[in-house]
Amino acid sequence: MLNQIFLKEMEDKNWQEVSGQIRNFIRETVKKFNKDGVIIGLSGGIDSAVVAYLTSQALKDKQVLFLIMPDRDSNKENIKNAQEIAKILKREYKKIDLTPILKEIGIYRLIPKFFLNERIVKKLFNHLKNKIKSQMLHSKGILGFTTFDFASRRATAYALPKLRLRSLLLYYFGVLKNLLVCGTTNKTEYLIGHYDKYGDGACDIEPIRYLYKTQVKKLAHFLNVPEKIIKKSPSPDLFAGSIMTDESWMGMTFEQLDSILYGLEKKIEKNKLAEILNIDVKTIEEVEKAKQNEMLKRKMPLSLEI
Amino acid sequence: MLNQIFLKEMEDKNWQEVSGQIRNFIRETVKKFNKDGVIIGLSGGIDSAVVAYLTSQALKDKQVLFLIMPDRDSNKENIKNAQEIAKILKREYKKIDLTPILKEIGIYRLIPKFFLNERIVKKLFNHLKNKIKSQMLHSKGILGFTTFDFASRRATAYALPKLRLRSLLLYYFGVLKNLLVCGTTNKTEYLIGHYDKYGDGACDIEPIRYLYKTQVKKLAHFLNVPEKIIKKSPSPDLFAGSIMTDESWMGMTFEQLDSILYGLEKKIEKNKLAEILNIDVKTIEEVEKAKQNEMLKRKMPLSLEI
Repeated sequence: MLNQIFLKEMEDKNWQEVSGQIRNFIRETVKKFNKDGVIIGLSGGIDSAVVAYLTSQALKDKQVLFLIMPDRDSNKENIKNAQEIAKILKREYKKIDLTPILKEIGIYRLIPKFFLNERIVKKLFNHLKNKIKSQMLHSKGILGFTTFDFASRRATAYALPKLRLRSLLLYYFGVLKNLLVCGTTNKTEYLIGHYDKYGDGACDIEPIRYLYKTQVKKLAHFLNVPEKIIKKSPSPDLFAGSIMTDESWMGMTFEQLDSILYGLEKKIEKNKLAEILNIDVKTIEEVEKAKQNEMLKRKMPLSLEI
Repeated sequence: MLNQIFLKEMEDKNWQEVSGQIRNFIRETVKKFNKDGVIIGLSGGIDSAVVAYLTSQALKDKQVLFLIMPDRDSNKENIKNAQEIAKILKREYKKIDLTPILKEIGIYRLIPKFFLNERIVKKLFNHLKNKIKSQMLHSKGILGFTTFDFASRRATAYALPKLRLRSLLLYYFGVLKNLLVCGTTNKTEYLIGHYDKYGDGACDIEPIRYLYKTQVKKLAHFLNVPEKIIKKSPSPDLFAGSIMTDESWMGMTFEQLDSILYGLEKKIEKNKLAEILNIDVKTIEEVEKAKQNEMLKRKMPLSLEI
């Protein structure tokens, strides 16, 4: 399969060199903004792990502070993994439970706890997926571009404050301690808008935004990130239950998605690309649509000409 | 004074036409994104008042929801004014006290209530102003670009979560009720970075971002916004006491700042502009610097080349 050639091309980088470049970039940016170090939110997932590793290596003589910010719905395994990373890297971490803040904000009134069992989350998930499928992935859901039905809006309203609150807290401690706020968005997420511009995307620096998820995985191996963190299915972990992985949400694997994005980047004609990857042209068009929507989102907020 | 010519040029617009354009823009954007209306945070100040007026006129058959979001430090007069606007416009408003949420977040531990009397706020204010003066206005403070001393960072960490939380709540109710989140930044603030990109700047649409503050005032008169709201000194209202007005903070009046920005926009040479406006070249350079910093801020988050 030619698909494999794309993946090989993507993965075939000098990871020693790449990680050196990223470390330099982190060091230089901290210096440029006169900061005393960086602050990073650790989710227990692969992206924040890779960023944590590179940052800790880059800033040996500077502060690196991790925030772990679960709420009542967070997967316990993820919290444990996040703490493990902080311990491996021998850097300070703060664990802040978002639950009491989110309770004050009022989100838990939207979905009572007893509703959040696997069966109901699965139902909600399928509902959301069907609603959003016709508009490709879920790229427009987060900023609420489209008119979903009430159930979908309720789910988005439930999840969004978690992302926003995490960024708020990163800046709160970041400002207090003079640390640069470091995001963990990768190129795949960035291109199709699989992040929240004012939530997890609200930061000062994005060290891995130029690497596809497939490449982040490769880099994680190179850095010796624990195998169990590399292997687990990426998930936004915003609802209880672990059904809502990124891949089931997108309807394809990251390898497939990255192959499509890489093909588009190489300006391979759509029909040719469909043939190479042995997929529907329609799937490629959906990914293209998501990219276009993301470009539109980046122009927000809209205004009359200045 | 030639200064007056600039102001006259700026103010000499067909406000009937301008307000019509803005109303169209609001209507079209709501339609484009399939929304049922808009949601706006009302501060009791002139900018959000003007946006509220135009939006309510534009969307006669759609929903317009106002959020009034004070906390323990907010000026009571501002809250009253915000409520008055909602009543004049006969639109629904929700008043949400941020205090319990901010308490959970922990900001009030930074500055105990008994510290926030006029005398101490004044002292803090002067301290901040002196610290930041040398870096022009305060344009870099909000995103925490620069290394202030601890007192200044503490004040920023105290204020920032209020702005961020307001945007979070606007999106929370906006998503639930399918409303477009409407910001109230004007051109003066936008050009010199006198707003928080991930706070009051985090929204879907900015109807008055192409008008200088001086022009917003003129438009407010045209719209019959209550005189007392037009006349009061603009202030971020983030600390108790009313000393920290925008103008004392910037070290010049909005008319002066707008004249400089307008002169720069017209590409008038710096020395010539200083002569026309009867000010120091240094003052113009400080405003230019603030504009440059803001351009840099808009490129954030930084990443390696994609």
